[in-house]
Amino acid sequence: MSVTQAAAYAVPAPKSPLERTTVPRRAVREHDVLIHIHYAGICHSDIHQATDGWGEGIYPMVPGHEIAGVVTEVGPGVTRFAVGDRVGVGCFVDSCRECAYCLRGQEQYCSRGMTGTYNALDKDGEPTYGGYSTHIVVDENYTVRIPDGLGLDVAAPLLCAGITLYSPLRHWGAGPGKQVAIVGLGGLGHMGVKIAHALGAEVTVLSQTLRKEADGRALGADHFHATSDEATFDELAGRFDLIVSTVSAPLGFDAYLGLLKVDGALVNVGAPEEPVSLNLFSVIGGRKTLAGSMIGGIAETQEMLDFCAEHGLGAEIEVISADRINEAYERVQSGDVRYRFVIDTSTI
Amino acid sequence: MSVTQAAAYAVPAPKSPLERTTVPRRAVREHDVLIHIHYAGICHSDIHQATDGWGEGIYPMVPGHEIAGVVTEVGPGVTRFAVGDRVGVGCFVDSCRECAYCLRGQEQYCSRGMTGTYNALDKDGEPTYGGYSTHIVVDENYTVRIPDGLGLDVAAPLLCAGITLYSPLRHWGAGPGKQVAIVGLGGLGHMGVKIAHALGAEVTVLSQTLRKEADGRALGADHFHATSDEATFDELAGRFDLIVSTVSAPLGFDAYLGLLKVDGALVNVGAPEEPVSLNLFSVIGGRKTLAGSMIGGIAETQEMLDFCAEHGLGAEIEVISADRINEAYERVQSGDVRYRFVIDTSTI
Repeated sequence: MSVTQAAAYAVPAPKSPLERTTVPRRAVREHDVLIHIHYAGICHSDIHQATDGWGEGIYPMVPGHEIAGVVTEVGPGVTRFAVGDRVGVGCFVDSCRECAYCLRGQEQYCSRGMTGTYNALDKDGEPTYGGYSTHIVVDENYTVRIPDGLGLDVAAPLLCAGITLYSPLRHWGAGPGKQVAIVGLGGLGHMGVKIAHALGAEVTVLSQTLRKEADGRALGADHFHATSDEATFDELAGRFDLIVSTVSAPLGFDAYLGLLKVDGALVNVGAPEEPVSLNLFSVIGGRKTLAGSMIGGIAETQEMLDFCAEHGLGAEIEVISADRINEAYERVQSGDVRYRFVIDTSTI
Repeated sequence: MSVTQAAAYAVPAPKSPLERTTVPRRAVREHDVLIHIHYAGICHSDIHQATDGWGEGIYPMVPGHEIAGVVTEVGPGVTRFAVGDRVGVGCFVDSCRECAYCLRGQEQYCSRGMTGTYNALDKDGEPTYGGYSTHIVVDENYTVRIPDGLGLDVAAPLLCAGITLYSPLRHWGAGPGKQVAIVGLGGLGHMGVKIAHALGAEVTVLSQTLRKEADGRALGADHFHATSDEATFDELAGRFDLIVSTVSAPLGFDAYLGLLKVDGALVNVGAPEEPVSLNLFSVIGGRKTLAGSMIGGIAETQEMLDFCAEHGLGAEIEVISADRINEAYERVQSGDVRYRFVIDTSTI
């Protein structure tokens, strides 16, 4: 049955704590599915947006774009899902569906702009509300299937953290015989280690200190180095085919580019809000690439979930009740989470 | 016959004008060829090094790494060239020949460092002297053949300017159906326009003003835009698959990255000496690449010369006598050359 109001946790105004409330959910339309949300991950970008760090926030804001649940109603035109299916929703719930990027399955780069799962306006001009809620209504074309082998709790963070790492690792060819480094071992980075290892690459974690070394090796890292130790940059010079940086602090990019082989790529999936400084000779001297990557398309997200299920990869999570979201935000900001908070939405 | 001393123009000390002198040339060894130099191009990097702009200059310095001439003697082990062959020498005359990069024909990225054609020390610890000279002795493996269809004068600049553009244009797939922009229409840029056009790409020149528009179109550009006009960046947003920047002034990189399609690349072959500023969101939002490229390997340089001969592409040059080199340096620094000075070395 349709719900017209769903319980949710929302930020009423910039920098305010989250509070329990209700938000409208549309009745299912021709191609919609109604999803009973079971779990929602807390992504660092939720906090950026909740605190209006990126500006232009729409309030009240219900964050959450790492959504896992079960279909409870389908529109008459829905062909891909049935009631009872285990499904996920990631960072966007619509796009123009007509541009070259949408047509090739790169909806995240839609030339007219994708519709964010929250903090956005949909094609009817209505605000979108995210996954910190009991229900959500989403077009089936922007919904993915969570394979049976994956728990909904550990699957939720894959919808953002998983695809954010999977997409560049695949695009830049992580696999057997390749040396891959993951910078930062947090919510994103820990999935990067798991996925790169499962893809067959030799994986190195570059972390500020050796504090998480045991974790990193347990997740699948072959090597672990502290970036606070300058010797790391001498020892690993010219080592990597691919470095994926998950950190939002500005790195010393010239030093990191020095760790790449000729034709190597340093790909940023985290980003500081401030501009960074770069000496172009750092890329010219070895035909190196400084690039970025942003989540992935719908088909690729499904491919990632299937890959993770096949290899038994879920996120490392700490499940919390909804009344602990504000506390969790503080802990994320102080780096005190291994490695992703997931809200049990039955507690909303 | 061997020459033990060759006439040359050298910089005796940093920032001094060039003067006529003689420099030692070794007797031809097993795999060497002695080349009677006919023409030597003046590259902007000659001036950087002559004035010690990059530091660590070795003096006296004979610049010149765009060398075209004729073989007048060959060592007993030489198999690839004979006396009378028309040949060229580019930016390097040796490399380790053993590392992964040398073995795959990327000698320019030799992990032990290539031996520069000038301003370097060879494996015996002897300084190398470049092409502003009547003769040079070079290992045949670092010598390329200039096809009959190409004049030695217009071929000389191809050995640096030509390969510097050809290599990234090929590597990043310039060709039919691709939108390619060349930033800066100077010695490098004008070869970029010619080569990209010959490869079948749709070519746009991005120049500070429209002053060189007629030239650009005559060289093969389909479009020509002034970067001093901010409307250019709106009009061309999301247009290009590949932008090759040949300028050494620091660009507004975020604006140029905005001109790329998703998965597009901005490749720098010119570079400012100072670090540049970059907002990483400029690459993240469309999986874009900021990269660099440095000349090309020996086999690729031969491929470039063959391509240029096949398509009738030489540099646009102004031939000068050796006594005008200092004047030419001043004109290069003020941008007053269309598009490359080439020294007639018979006047040394």
